Amino acid sequence: MCPGTVQAAASPVFGAGLWNFATYVDRYAVDRYGEARSTIEQIELAARVGDISYVDLNYPFTHGVSLGDVKAALERTGIAAIGVTPEIYLREHQLGAFTNPDPARRASAMAIMQGAADVVRELGARYVKIWPGQDGFDYPFQVDYAELNRLAVDGMRDLAQANPDLRFVIEYKPREPRTHMLWSSAARTVLGIQQMGVDNVGVLLDFGHALFGGESPAEAAQLLIDHGLLWGMDVNDNFRGWDDDMVVGSVHITEVFEFFHTLRKNGWEGVWQLDQFPFREDVVDNARTSIRFLKAIHRALERLDEEALAQAQARHDSLAAQRAVQDALLGCMA
Amino acid sequence: MCPGTVQAAASPVFGAGLWNFATYVDRYAVDRYGEARSTIEQIELAARVGDISYVDLNYPFTHGVSLGDVKAALERTGIAAIGVTPEIYLREHQLGAFTNPDPARRASAMAIMQGAADVVRELGARYVKIWPGQDGFDYPFQVDYAELNRLAVDGMRDLAQANPDLRFVIEYKPREPRTHMLWSSAARTVLGIQQMGVDNVGVLLDFGHALFGGESPAEAAQLLIDHGLLWGMDVNDNFRGWDDDMVVGSVHITEVFEFFHTLRKNGWEGVWQLDQFPFREDVVDNARTSIRFLKAIHRALERLDEEALAQAQARHDSLAAQRAVQDALLGCMA
Amino acid sequence: MCPGTVQAAASPVFGAGLWNFATYVDRYAVDRYGEARSTIEQIELAARVGDISYVDLNYPFTHGVSLGDVKAALERTGIAAIGVTPEIYLREHQLGAFTNPDPARRASAMAIMQGAADVVRELGARYVKIWPGQDGFDYPFQVDYAELNRLAVDGMRDLAQANPDLRFVIEYKPREPRTHMLWSSAARTVLGIQQMGVDNVGVLLDFGHALFGGESPAEAAQLLIDHGLLWGMDVNDNFRGWDDDMVVGSVHITEVFEFFHTLRKNGWEGVWQLDQFPFREDVVDNARTSIRFLKAIHRALERLDEEALAQAQARHDSLAAQRAVQDALLGCMA
Amino acid sequence: MCPGTVQAAASPVFGAGLWNFATYVDRYAVDRYGEARSTIEQIELAARVGDISYVDLNYPFTHGVSLGDVKAALERTGIAAIGVTPEIYLREHQLGAFTNPDPARRASAMAIMQGAADVVRELGARYVKIWPGQDGFDYPFQVDYAELNRLAVDGMRDLAQANPDLRFVIEYKPREPRTHMLWSSAARTVLGIQQMGVDNVGVLLDFGHALFGGESPAEAAQLLIDHGLLWGMDVNDNFRGWDDDMVVGSVHITEVFEFFHTLRKNGWEGVWQLDQFPFREDVVDNARTSIRFLKAIHRALERLDEEALAQAQARHDSLAAQRAVQDALLGCMA
Repeated sequence: MCPGTVQAAASPVFGAGLWNFATYVDRYAVDRYGEARSTIEQIELAARVGDISYVDLNYPFTHGVSLGDVKAALERTGIAAIGVTPEIYLREHQLGAFTNPDPARRASAMAIMQGAADVVRELGARYVKIWPGQDGFDYPFQVDYAELNRLAVDGMRDLAQANPDLRFVIEYKPREPRTHMLWSSAARTVLGIQQMGVDNVGVLLDFGHALFGGESPAEAAQLLIDHGLLWGMDVNDNFRGWDDDMVVGSVHITEVFEFFHTLRKNGWEGVWQLDQFPFREDVVDNARTSIRFLKAIHRALERLDEEALAQAQARHDSLAAQRAVQDALLGCMA
Repeated sequence: MCPGTVQAAASPVFGAGLWNFATYVDRYAVDRYGEARSTIEQIELAARVGDISYVDLNYPFTHGVSLGDVKAALERTGIAAIGVTPEIYLREHQLGAFTNPDPARRASAMAIMQGAADVVRELGARYVKIWPGQDGFDYPFQVDYAELNRLAVDGMRDLAQANPDLRFVIEYKPREPRTHMLWSSAARTVLGIQQMGVDNVGVLLDFGHALFGGESPAEAAQLLIDHGLLWGMDVNDNFRGWDDDMVVGSVHITEVFEFFHTLRKNGWEGVWQLDQFPFREDVVDNARTSIRFLKAIHRALERLDEEALAQAQARHDSLAAQRAVQDALLGCMA
Repeated sequence: MCPGTVQAAASPVFGAGLWNFATYVDRYAVDRYGEARSTIEQIELAARVGDISYVDLNYPFTHGVSLGDVKAALERTGIAAIGVTPEIYLREHQLGAFTNPDPARRASAMAIMQGAADVVRELGARYVKIWPGQDGFDYPFQVDYAELNRLAVDGMRDLAQANPDLRFVIEYKPREPRTHMLWSSAARTVLGIQQMGVDNVGVLLDFGHALFGGESPAEAAQLLIDHGLLWGMDVNDNFRGWDDDMVVGSVHITEVFEFFHTLRKNGWEGVWQLDQFPFREDVVDNARTSIRFLKAIHRALERLDEEALAQAQARHDSLAAQRAVQDALLGCMA
Repeated sequence: MCPGTVQAAASPVFGAGLWNFATYVDRYAVDRYGEARSTIEQIELAARVGDISYVDLNYPFTHGVSLGDVKAALERTGIAAIGVTPEIYLREHQLGAFTNPDPARRASAMAIMQGAADVVRELGARYVKIWPGQDGFDYPFQVDYAELNRLAVDGMRDLAQANPDLRFVIEYKPREPRTHMLWSSAARTVLGIQQMGVDNVGVLLDFGHALFGGESPAEAAQLLIDHGLLWGMDVNDNFRGWDDDMVVGSVHITEVFEFFHTLRKNGWEGVWQLDQFPFREDVVDNARTSIRFLKAIHRALERLDEEALAQAQARHDSLAAQRAVQDALLGCMA
């Protein structure tokens, strides 16, 4: 038992991008880090974790898997769909989905996203998650920035207006696979959503993307909450220089804690999702290790002396704040 | 003569932060890299450069220098004031100017800024430049982010509304001297200005701050222009990991070129200012070397095959764009 | 003609890793950025560039291509092999080639490298290039560092001693695909080679890896030359935060120039190789654009006022050095 | 009490650079973050912490303080000198101490270091700590790298040979105050020490410098131990992009733990020193907060299941290793 915890609060609800249970390639290991897995196999692996209530599914599904198959697998495992992520970052859209210089490719990207929207309806999921991974640029002078932004905003507005019954979330990221991505930060994405002038587009904050982009993840979360746009989030970890998608808590324990503290303070209620790429790890063990850590964070939130922390913050006293935090986090502190 | 240039366009107008002509300390060389210089001596060094038409002056002036002294020195040297930068980042405001937890210190910062506003009027300068260097935080959990933002926005709004006849520009920067600064990026600053709801606050873009923050400086300039908020800029260079304030063009020739190309394309007309810290260099030589490079950039803009570049950008062809750029920049390319 | 160049020096000899002419995957675009190409097709594309005299070949060759086929293609195109790079970074060796915890996998990696050594003999190439991309670690506490180093040094010594008639070069890199790679810097690699105690292992310096690792590429080259270990090099460019493998000169013109200046000053004679990943670019155009830039750099070396530079360096005068460099590089400077 | 700890191991011995108790300037807050303090006042503040057994003293002492005064203060407070750090990074040596282009300045730097050596003898300290903060370069093409290295190695050898009864430690750092420092990494410093050919020069590893330079601090410690050169260390924390000198454990809990685990595993016995710059914090509270955390780390080392960790490392199992580590670190994990 965790010393000092009188009663446990309700456990958070956990979810994961279904790709947490896939196998991966990179530009070197082109023969894949393990055997390919179907959408159904990935759902079954997610179910084996034991704490996953929701998944975010890539669309289209893997070869030969139908929507009916997916529905059945979800029903069988008791897992629900939180969102659907259209794959608009493959070969065809290597120069962009929304901002591709070729109108035909912009149209084909839109068709994939529309397909994902239909799946969201069918599965009763909460949102279509848009991660326009190829929208951006690689080289100085490669693009006209005003035009790039115009296409990105117009395309997203069109998609949102064509599906007024659904919600869309944009997942921002500073770079990779492009050296510069268009939706690169929380603030930049809010500005774009304002330009769209629609009310069914929000933001999904990826903890690692915020770290990687030089943001404080907690501060970025607060900014999005203040604009009413934090509609989803996922966590992982990295060494700040790249989106390593490592097990949450393996590097930045304190900042993960601060992130969830900010959510709690604002009464944010949503699914605690994982977005990790266990290239060389057992995927079930990887998710379990992550959730084990997140449960410890959740318990530590219960232990945190909020009054002491608030007093420290009122005078910007970093040392008193650190001590309050360490008392909650580290069992050997006393 | 530059091959291929038939006639020279009008030279840009150059300016510099007056601190380009000061001497500096850092946390190690506490005995200063050279003898301290008065505001008047700094103006005289600026005049020796030969191409400086404008300076941005720190306020208060150095000990014993009056506004009358400054006016006389400017008149004598033929240099005009473009802006005035209040020093709200000294010991007293080490926990913030706008966001200091102590209301008395917020008030004293406001008094300094009001003093700077009065000097702007007296000198007929274009703006008060606000660089709230100590507004931010250093540690996770140190501050309440919502409150920090509220104080920053409210304070800036108050200042702007108290001086409706003047313009204010905020210079954003990701970090230093705090590990995280509040106005950290172009997009973040635009969002803050929107919250202020005033029309006399804009942005000064520092090329090096944009690089350091992971932005493309040209893209950030375009974003600010699209929001009607690029009211000033200055240049320098660095190695991307820190605000080194080196001589412009010493590292990022192509990106400086792209930055000025973006300004030109948008018809942005303003002063090409320097913001450099020549810790170990002769300050006049430093400014001259910078301006010599900027004149070359200006001539290269004349040579650039805009048609070829536009065609390359229309198809996101990075290679054709590079060749057009190198043909303009590098004399030995042909 | 380049103004001020009275006579052209002999052009450098150019080479390229054969993978410059392949197509690529990354962890998102798993359907590959273009159709797969055989080793033979890659050689033919290299030949189309027009200035490529040498290639560094991945081994094993693509499916169905024999050594005889490769020999014939090289003969047909007039291209020679400078080196052979064994693929010891695929699925099987995802936990390391030299440092894999499984002795059987260390043995299978050794067999691939021995195969590459045999191809070097057959093709009369200059070296086996060892890039142990999977040798390192991802997480804190994942490995025992002393043991990791021991395996890396012992394995490389064994390989070198088993092939005393050949030369081996290690290409170091700070990270990717592991978050931390074992041979991470020039100095670290020299230390390892000393521990091996053999005389047929040297270093291949990749310009972008040095930049990415926070080294000055020119300083790293000098260090390796001073230790008699700079046996190969290749160039490209990036934004310092990742190994982007972009077209050389697209970002860091001055530092590329300094790198080649350092080689020339030391009388280093070797092939100017490319190591680039044109994910979205035409591969022939990509190599041609690179070589076009490198030829300009070569001409600029001829124009550089070495006397002025040496005098500036003798007093650490960064400004005078910059002016000498810009006069040589930028045609519009005068 | 820390659950699971049957008996406490002997507490580590703590020390601190005396500058932990000073006040600071930076390039903005030129009026200093607080009133200047004498060497004696700093010693008295160190004593107030309650756990500091050793200090590393800057030399020369502050104005008007004699060696006798320092001896008396140390005696009075019961603190011993572990080292003396000559200030060879002030105005006079802004272009380098060992590598200054001016021989007279190299000589004056040597005189200061010799003075520090004499103080080491007088105080019975363990070493002279050499941090050549200004030895390096700022700009591409600024220096001749071979010459820079030659001067650095020759100067250090001369100093060591002139004082064969003493030990010297070099503290490496990648950058600041120069954009590139000469002794930039653990491996680079080992290479330099080899070139010196003396046996009384070793290395002081600063945890934050290693992080900042992209090293794994634990791996760097192992490398130095394997070369018999880890003669001192100090800790702090940062965000990896700069040497922030923050309170240890405020960001990188796990990596601090791994660092001390590596020391313990190798039987390294030495003082756990602090190197922090509490610009805006109470200096005593800052040191106490640090030591409080380090004691928790020490207790966690006792709790760590070494057998489980060793088994995980034997198969490079990052997940099992993380769980063992979190079980020891985080009280709420169970």
